[in-house]
Amino acid sequence: MRDEDYSSTHPPLPPTTEDDRVAWLRLLRSRRVGPTTFWKLMADHGTAQRSLEALPEVARAAGVEGYSPCPEGVVLAEMKAARMAGARMICRGDGAYPRALAALPDAPPLLWAIGSAEVLSKPMVAVVGARNASSLGLRMARSLAGDLGAAGYVVVSGLARGIDAAAHGAALEGGTVAVLAGGVDVVYPAENARLSDEIVAKDGLRLSEQPMRIQPVARHFPVRNRIISGMASGVVVVEAAAKSGSLITARNALDQGREVMAVPGHPLDGRAGGCNILIRDGAKLVRSAEDIIEQLPPPPEPPGQGAVPLEVPPEPPKDRRTLQQAAALHQQILDRLGPSPVSEDQLIRDLGAAAKAVSPALTDLELEGRVQRQPGGMLALVPR
Amino acid sequence: MRDEDYSSTHPPLPPTTEDDRVAWLRLLRSRRVGPTTFWKLMADHGTAQRSLEALPEVARAAGVEGYSPCPEGVVLAEMKAARMAGARMICRGDGAYPRALAALPDAPPLLWAIGSAEVLSKPMVAVVGARNASSLGLRMARSLAGDLGAAGYVVVSGLARGIDAAAHGAALEGGTVAVLAGGVDVVYPAENARLSDEIVAKDGLRLSEQPMRIQPVARHFPVRNRIISGMASGVVVVEAAAKSGSLITARNALDQGREVMAVPGHPLDGRAGGCNILIRDGAKLVRSAEDIIEQLPPPPEPPGQGAVPLEVPPEPPKDRRTLQQAAALHQQILDRLGPSPVSEDQLIRDLGAAAKAVSPALTDLELEGRVQRQPGGMLALVPR
Repeated sequence: MRDEDYSSTHPPLPPTTEDDRVAWLRLLRSRRVGPTTFWKLMADHGTAQRSLEALPEVARAAGVEGYSPCPEGVVLAEMKAARMAGARMICRGDGAYPRALAALPDAPPLLWAIGSAEVLSKPMVAVVGARNASSLGLRMARSLAGDLGAAGYVVVSGLARGIDAAAHGAALEGGTVAVLAGGVDVVYPAENARLSDEIVAKDGLRLSEQPMRIQPVARHFPVRNRIISGMASGVVVVEAAAKSGSLITARNALDQGREVMAVPGHPLDGRAGGCNILIRDGAKLVRSAEDIIEQLPPPPEPPGQGAVPLEVPPEPPKDRRTLQQAAALHQQILDRLGPSPVSEDQLIRDLGAAAKAVSPALTDLELEGRVQRQPGGMLALVPR
Repeated sequence: MRDEDYSSTHPPLPPTTEDDRVAWLRLLRSRRVGPTTFWKLMADHGTAQRSLEALPEVARAAGVEGYSPCPEGVVLAEMKAARMAGARMICRGDGAYPRALAALPDAPPLLWAIGSAEVLSKPMVAVVGARNASSLGLRMARSLAGDLGAAGYVVVSGLARGIDAAAHGAALEGGTVAVLAGGVDVVYPAENARLSDEIVAKDGLRLSEQPMRIQPVARHFPVRNRIISGMASGVVVVEAAAKSGSLITARNALDQGREVMAVPGHPLDGRAGGCNILIRDGAKLVRSAEDIIEQLPPPPEPPGQGAVPLEVPPEPPKDRRTLQQAAALHQQILDRLGPSPVSEDQLIRDLGAAAKAVSPALTDLELEGRVQRQPGGMLALVPR
């Protein structure tokens, strides 16, 4: 089965040959190609190979001269590193790829996985929260995750210290999924190395969309968080301050159509501030695992074994900008931004562009790790 | 202006003469006449005097022979005790009577008041909660009540120890209203005697619908609580366990169409259980006085001075049982109940009556203090 068998009028199948996999990985690892762009290119050009061939022209249209896609040697090295780490590539469209995640417009084209991919067919709940959690918060995370595991749910989290680690630890028996911000073979933080081993030993899974061996940096975390919430049918925030990453994760989860839930705390306890804001804004209040399960949709049908045809990528909105227009706007935004934070309003004024067009472009750039949204919503360029 | 000037086709005016007041008080203090029955009689017979004349026949129809209304001497003694205590009678329809309270179908026909009735024309918020509050809960109550007072709201509460006392204490400057379960001249609990004096000294008010000198007993509290929530446009529960009186107050407040709000707490802190249930069921989450004020309807127009015509009592539902039928059902319920608690389901089975008919009758009897609903919803007769 070769790339040439497909055109833009047919939905692409996941790669089935080594050549296909190399092309997918090359396209994904090419500069300026994030997941959203990956799927746009696939929709426009039908296959990864053809998208790679079209890329230099697409870049030129966006004002980038002399663009060349990611060299084959780079991805062959990544694939070798994966084999050495015992990591398996799971592509969107593969039977093992989490169904809920596949439905996102910015679904990762592929994930590296270490462990038992079987857990991915079970119903999943994300349990996330503060790194500097209180002992009350840790107790709550353990209690919720343990009860969710006992009820047949797989707990998904980010292997961070605090709430994440407590949730994974209590859900080991049922198999738990840790989505890493850096490479799947890079355990971070180091203090969770043993937990990380136990997750794999106990039929759980570690996942990442990042290249092997990549050390996680700040811009990886929000991108990673969309996978945590994207895999799960619901996201439970256990303890989070008012201006915290968990809050951004929860808001993104809402955008993804996920059920967002939060554990309340006393208003005079700052560590509950974010959770209380979420509840105030409509998140369901969680007192126990029963409260969580009650909110979740019925578990989906287990997916069949082996490759299933890729569904057509979600329809872009009717007024969707073309890739060239989007690339041009992206470049304008990147030109305006620097390491010093600027407000979104200011940026929109500077660009003289419609807020309606700038906001999704900013989201793309945030997801691609080019732009960072700082506390208070200020925007800054991520140094490359 | 005499009772004879009115018939059932005209809404009754509040009493303006001493004779009127004596008749109102006699009717209200007559056996088996609670507020709901009072207004039904007034609607059927036009005046308190005519209602008093009709009462023996109404009782006979309900199977009670030899019924006689409250003797005049009893109410004259009550009025004398009120004068000695410096208490003023505020009747429904008087300019000073709280407007929101007047709209309830079981609005108290009259209230005894000690202090400055002017506060009753300001927008009011009820702040209630546990007697055995935590120090965090007390801090929260003080902070909310102080900020509400500073924002021009009058804080209404029940002068109980714990949250109530903390709320009154922090809201003294703006004038605060304490609604007592027993007589307005009976300060309970004794430890709040000084606070009670300060409330009156600082242009606040103590209120009660009960006869003067009556010591509060268990059955008085739920009846009193409907006044606290009925006067206010919103009810804030600061700290309350899962099975607490504050929860019943909040549910009744919802039935009254009041905005119900609650301060969350950690699920592992039992004292937050009731508040978390309320929020889970749709009460607004409160972190600060701003959260409360945001939920409240705009303050009503200040009422005019002096007597205003009583509005027609709220229309009874179309399928409303007649007074005689209701009295008969009330008697059947009272006959079935004893001091040992019985479940509502059991009672309905025993009566062979429709749950639809029994539930409102039980509410009437609870409000009249004949039946007590115990933790878990079990029902028992209140010894007389």
